[in-house]
Amino acid sequence: MITDVTAAAAPLSRRLFLEKLASVGGSALLMAGMSALGFGIESAMAAPPNLSGGRGKKIVILGGGMAGLTAAYEMSNAGYDVTLLEARSFAGGRSQTARKGFTLTELGGEKQTCTFDDVLYINHGPWRIPYHHQSLLHYTRKFGVPLEIFVNDNDHSYIYFERGSGPLAGKAIRKQEVAADLRGKAAEMLAKCVQQGALDQQLTGGDKEMFLSYLRREGYLTAKDFQYVGTDGRGFEVNPGAGLNPGKEAAPYGMLDVLHSGAWRTLGSVAGFEQQRTMFQPVGGMDRIPAALARNIKPGIIRYSCKVEKVAQDADKVEVFYVDGQGQRRSVTADYCLAAIPLSVLRNIDLACSDKFKQAITGVSYALVGKIGLQMKRRFWEENHHIYGGHIYTDNPEIGSITLPSTGYQSQKGVLLGYYQFGANAAKVSAMTPAQRQAFAAAAGQKIMPEYADSVESSFSVAWHRVEHNLGGWAQWSDEGRKTAYPTLLEPDGRIYLAGEHLSYLTGWQAGAVESAWQQIAKIHQRAQAA
Amino acid sequence: MITDVTAAAAPLSRRLFLEKLASVGGSALLMAGMSALGFGIESAMAAPPNLSGGRGKKIVILGGGMAGLTAAYEMSNAGYDVTLLEARSFAGGRSQTARKGFTLTELGGEKQTCTFDDVLYINHGPWRIPYHHQSLLHYTRKFGVPLEIFVNDNDHSYIYFERGSGPLAGKAIRKQEVAADLRGKAAEMLAKCVQQGALDQQLTGGDKEMFLSYLRREGYLTAKDFQYVGTDGRGFEVNPGAGLNPGKEAAPYGMLDVLHSGAWRTLGSVAGFEQQRTMFQPVGGMDRIPAALARNIKPGIIRYSCKVEKVAQDADKVEVFYVDGQGQRRSVTADYCLAAIPLSVLRNIDLACSDKFKQAITGVSYALVGKIGLQMKRRFWEENHHIYGGHIYTDNPEIGSITLPSTGYQSQKGVLLGYYQFGANAAKVSAMTPAQRQAFAAAAGQKIMPEYADSVESSFSVAWHRVEHNLGGWAQWSDEGRKTAYPTLLEPDGRIYLAGEHLSYLTGWQAGAVESAWQQIAKIHQRAQAA
Repeated sequence: MITDVTAAAAPLSRRLFLEKLASVGGSALLMAGMSALGFGIESAMAAPPNLSGGRGKKIVILGGGMAGLTAAYEMSNAGYDVTLLEARSFAGGRSQTARKGFTLTELGGEKQTCTFDDVLYINHGPWRIPYHHQSLLHYTRKFGVPLEIFVNDNDHSYIYFERGSGPLAGKAIRKQEVAADLRGKAAEMLAKCVQQGALDQQLTGGDKEMFLSYLRREGYLTAKDFQYVGTDGRGFEVNPGAGLNPGKEAAPYGMLDVLHSGAWRTLGSVAGFEQQRTMFQPVGGMDRIPAALARNIKPGIIRYSCKVEKVAQDADKVEVFYVDGQGQRRSVTADYCLAAIPLSVLRNIDLACSDKFKQAITGVSYALVGKIGLQMKRRFWEENHHIYGGHIYTDNPEIGSITLPSTGYQSQKGVLLGYYQFGANAAKVSAMTPAQRQAFAAAAGQKIMPEYADSVESSFSVAWHRVEHNLGGWAQWSDEGRKTAYPTLLEPDGRIYLAGEHLSYLTGWQAGAVESAWQQIAKIHQRAQAA
Repeated sequence: MITDVTAAAAPLSRRLFLEKLASVGGSALLMAGMSALGFGIESAMAAPPNLSGGRGKKIVILGGGMAGLTAAYEMSNAGYDVTLLEARSFAGGRSQTARKGFTLTELGGEKQTCTFDDVLYINHGPWRIPYHHQSLLHYTRKFGVPLEIFVNDNDHSYIYFERGSGPLAGKAIRKQEVAADLRGKAAEMLAKCVQQGALDQQLTGGDKEMFLSYLRREGYLTAKDFQYVGTDGRGFEVNPGAGLNPGKEAAPYGMLDVLHSGAWRTLGSVAGFEQQRTMFQPVGGMDRIPAALARNIKPGIIRYSCKVEKVAQDADKVEVFYVDGQGQRRSVTADYCLAAIPLSVLRNIDLACSDKFKQAITGVSYALVGKIGLQMKRRFWEENHHIYGGHIYTDNPEIGSITLPSTGYQSQKGVLLGYYQFGANAAKVSAMTPAQRQAFAAAAGQKIMPEYADSVESSFSVAWHRVEHNLGGWAQWSDEGRKTAYPTLLEPDGRIYLAGEHLSYLTGWQAGAVESAWQQIAKIHQRAQAA
């Protein structure tokens, strides 16, 4: 199946552009690029459609990920006769959480069984929920799934850029230092230009004074002569404390040193919309969300361990052929089919549909993505480095960012995300064995924190492009694909409808799956009502 | 006792400066000013002193706030014979949490009994813990007090500045909009100056190009001509979603409009050190920390409801006279006394000490501070405005900031902080009855969110300068006081030692109390060992 990966990697301007970005500036830059491309932004629908009066018709749903679960929950509640076929023995699709006992065998790979200590876990699929994903948040609220803050921005975390030059290259520096020093110096430079009259066409009289006041505040410039000489926000050499200790502020870095290090690539006047605060994660793991949905779907509707082989249809009905958990070939007949599985997987199923539809299904690539959870015997990043959650940005695109857990603060052990890479970098790392990946991640982290490699106890890694029922992280539409294949797939082919994050502008986000499901079940409902 | 407040308000350059700041720019500006003055920064000590071999001597501690509890815990563990006299019926001092049944009668005021629903509360004293307060975090870790993130910066929260001018004055705008638009425009302006050669003395050749790349990234400027034309981070008019909805970005505000609104006063290149991420709060309320300390102090050591009237001393001993919970006059004799109560209270106790010491005790003012918790019947700020935790900054200094709860997300009801004001503004609001304060806060919030006033169910307010055993929020040293009175109070007067946040450069923070206690008990220990 690895050949599928190669197929998915066919040149597409958007993906190539993102890969290029990642190779230059690591995942921080990649994320900025994704944002700039409107690649996975936020959600527009906040409540499911009204399906009242939907009795009688039979619906078969393929896939028990977020889209399929959403559709099954809403349609069965509305009185539809629903059957959901899920290939795995559990619900959730990519919304997985690896904890003790969780197993994964990548295609062509060895079986991994997670050996994390009790209560520890890694969300190796989707892992964060922006405040504006109101569609997904509709269900966490409805089912009372407790949420906690996902720390997506941490002033005190490290930036480790080693591909620049100068004294700060290859040195773990704090985000607060980079932000204070470079922005402070930029404010000083702009203040000088304003004072010299360079912007007198834009700013006159009182506005000029007010703008200078803004610059002074923004850059913590001196009151009299608008100089940046450091600020407490960049940290102290000696922290203030009790008694005769007012503390000693650390001296700023040289502006050119910060510039040459490349660490400025992590800055932005405001976080991209899909990376903004506040972000959430479910307490206990991302799989708590699909578990809550599955728990609230009437028993018998979800049939686990059922692998779909073929979908047939005629003018009156659709018939889905599958192999059940006992290896028995079976089929289910329905009025409509909603295929809520990745296109990367759907394209391998014998689907009775038009050539145009079939063609469109192959018209999108899927992200190559790798993640690894490392169980550390001690939370040295908290204890010694005073970093609680958030990302350590690197410019090594085979590592991307290292992310500290936003849960279990001050406890003994923790699982951190050791890498998060994309595209060709993910392909390369995914060729390693699990043990090699662990060693690779440990060595990379060791360059940043001296306690790193020795603290690793175990790991769990995933390369989503090598995962049987996903074959990729998420859909990556090219501009061309959005124009041609995408609209085709939004409409039914006969009695077959599609749903998933791939049919949204929130690709790679659970909210995209939920909203796509809402949109498509509304269409089915409308047709069923008319029939 | 209100006269005490007047005394505490005697002119001191630092406090006056801060009040002036607050009157101009609300609490955001005040906080920035506090930061600029090094007023309450971070902690330097991360572990208690080693008191080994401290057997035999008797210590009486006055006050069961964070300093007194810390001292009692460490000294009794080290083998000292400790008695702690606490005026209240519970431990914690200012580290209080108001929940159902909690009562407070301010001096000259009516009795308030908190009627919040179960599980709801307000931390009306200290409420947040910066990551660098390792001294306080030493105890949360030691005693397993669960922490959760305090959202101290929320991109999507409102700024409501009504004292500026132009179309954005008196309009609730989002922090993300202000940050993106003003910083974006500033980056554009600086890029223009750089391109025109205005900074050629500082930036040459490749550095110039790299600096322009930084500006493009920082301000989300267009690739070709370095223009700021908006960015997704400022938000969407129509959020992207499923199907044929790529979303519609909102247009930027005019730079002069943002400037004239005054909302830029909330911006800063980096948060002041004591306001940085990550910040914590204990799950369930700030009083969980003193409760954990008190629970771990041997029974009998803490004597509650004991009000100290007099401290006598001679060459051999110290004797503390107090009235116990039954109204009985009693005394306790010890080798040393550690007075861990606010100087605002200590100055009213008959203390046998030198004139110089007595004089020094009066040499500091205490902050006038007001807070109100408002129970809302519905979390409309989450449901309708998609704001989860964080501050709404205003430029009304009688309100300061409104803070949304960083806990219980997506639940039905919530308690928010309706105001947080200082100095003269706090004095003014504190003259109101509790009901008037509630109405005042409700009306102010109503201007920002239309659901506000109608949602208020109950309130609990505090004016710390009117609270019997505190008489102020925290010590506010003048530069002069730091030079004269402060060093005097750090050293014992005979057998009497002092401790508390007031004897640190972390005034107003629990960590200041903890570190001061550590410092002073180390001194007592050293002397006891030598004796």
